[in-house]
Amino acid sequence: MTYCVAMSVDDGLVFLSDTRTNAGVDHISTARKMTVFEQPGERVLVLLGAGNLALTQAVLHELSEPSNPDRPTLWTAPTMPDAARVVGQAVRDVHQREAHALQEFGVDFNCSFILGGQIAGAANAQGANAEGNHGRAHNRPRLFMIYSAGNFIESSSVSPYFQIGESKYGKPIIDRVLTPATPLGEAAKCALVSMDSTLRSNLSVGLPLDLLVYETDALRVTRFVSIDQDNAYFDLIHRTWGERLRQVFAEIPDPNWQDGAEVPLQRPERAPVLHRSPPDGAQTDHASVPAQTLAQDDKAKPQR
Amino acid sequence: MTYCVAMSVDDGLVFLSDTRTNAGVDHISTARKMTVFEQPGERVLVLLGAGNLALTQAVLHELSEPSNPDRPTLWTAPTMPDAARVVGQAVRDVHQREAHALQEFGVDFNCSFILGGQIAGAANAQGANAEGNHGRAHNRPRLFMIYSAGNFIESSSVSPYFQIGESKYGKPIIDRVLTPATPLGEAAKCALVSMDSTLRSNLSVGLPLDLLVYETDALRVTRFVSIDQDNAYFDLIHRTWGERLRQVFAEIPDPNWQDGAEVPLQRPERAPVLHRSPPDGAQTDHASVPAQTLAQDDKAKPQR
Repeated sequence: MTYCVAMSVDDGLVFLSDTRTNAGVDHISTARKMTVFEQPGERVLVLLGAGNLALTQAVLHELSEPSNPDRPTLWTAPTMPDAARVVGQAVRDVHQREAHALQEFGVDFNCSFILGGQIAGAANAQGANAEGNHGRAHNRPRLFMIYSAGNFIESSSVSPYFQIGESKYGKPIIDRVLTPATPLGEAAKCALVSMDSTLRSNLSVGLPLDLLVYETDALRVTRFVSIDQDNAYFDLIHRTWGERLRQVFAEIPDPNWQDGAEVPLQRPERAPVLHRSPPDGAQTDHASVPAQTLAQDDKAKPQR
Repeated sequence: MTYCVAMSVDDGLVFLSDTRTNAGVDHISTARKMTVFEQPGERVLVLLGAGNLALTQAVLHELSEPSNPDRPTLWTAPTMPDAARVVGQAVRDVHQREAHALQEFGVDFNCSFILGGQIAGAANAQGANAEGNHGRAHNRPRLFMIYSAGNFIESSSVSPYFQIGESKYGKPIIDRVLTPATPLGEAAKCALVSMDSTLRSNLSVGLPLDLLVYETDALRVTRFVSIDQDNAYFDLIHRTWGERLRQVFAEIPDPNWQDGAEVPLQRPERAPVLHRSPPDGAQTDHASVPAQTLAQDDKAKPQR
């Protein structure tokens, strides 16, 4: 599997991908999931891919060396939605070529992409920002998720990020901290913490990581790093996050089941839980079970 | 969906389940996923089920009112592995009865169970502990996961917990804190934190929760609570965990891309990332990109 995440915040875009690929546990390898299409000063597009590696690479080949020279490419698409359409079309071209043959081997047509970036636009282009202090106005950075069917959706302020691949392990921390107002550095940190949780819980995601942070209107790649196990910052995140998480966990009081606590315990025979008694009416002595409670008495010594 | 988790630690067992069921977002309801089979002083078995609700309930009916009176039941199984076999057999009986009809409607035979508990045993029974200070020796509490095919696995000291349903969101915290030595109260807290992360990220999991904490050799249910949105302890966990997580996150320094940091940035043109330049040899000015680094300088002001 793979884990890729991309975030769109007010100050720019963050892209992070792992490099593990596997076709069974005895066939684990690495492959880059991040591809950068850059024409400095004019456009930066970052593509993350997940799914069947042969398919994501076939789409990449189609995008790098288009089979139909009359169609727009990632180098000529005038806007980000046009660029997303180019990727969607490449997915559909590959589907038309490959899906039938794969189906005969029971292989799903399984690939998905995240495309983000910025393309310099004319000042009068729709959606251009009006600052114009770079000599030419720019369309703002935008972020898209492209599905196997070639259709796509765009991120928004209520949903400022996309994940592909093994997304669930690393989702809770993003849901808790990311908003469009999150500064770019903090968003990059959030992506790395999310990746760290995923690495911890899923063997099919692995180092090295590719991290690219794009600052709005830079129109070139200024911040990219490949993170391996010797990277000091990721090691700091890995150690600190794990330690501090355990510390926070330890600071929350354990549940207190003692008498006199505030929240009454619903005893099993009264609770709506499906409670089965033996069919032969064997003696039960529920009455002797002390009424216990589950409450948040901070001062009480946690009962273990 | 569903999220259920059960943990086996030295002091006993912890079971936690949500109650949300859904068949599409416009058909959300609640159902208990936890069933308790209790004969106080003799046995306590706790069954958690996930998957197709009609199937898990069919298995429950089979277990509560066995169709074949000659077979062992959860009330007569002499050991926990025997009890797991009873559940596995019930799953297979339901499969035989239902799978073909479901297949015609394209419905997968999708159900899985966690079974845990303790059955009082003879002192000479295999696996009985030797303490004997309760008048009779007990087999230790044990925990099993039973699959759709009726086969099952047991938890172990390196893998002291099982999850069924929407398991991924809540896995990282368990992986970080749970060991067999974890005290029972702390394990219960860990299960609740894991559930809180799942509730936050997945709408198909919902309150109320059923929490049952079983103390080794109690041989009766002493600690059970149904947790709804008014439960003060769960509310404490929910608030504290979210707040403290954000606090810990804020305390980790943002990545520092400035000159002079310790870890050299792999600049894009040197990095192994798939980097595409425009096909027509347009002027690139990579040379003007300052060498930037990603390092963990704690004292440096995080750059945003």
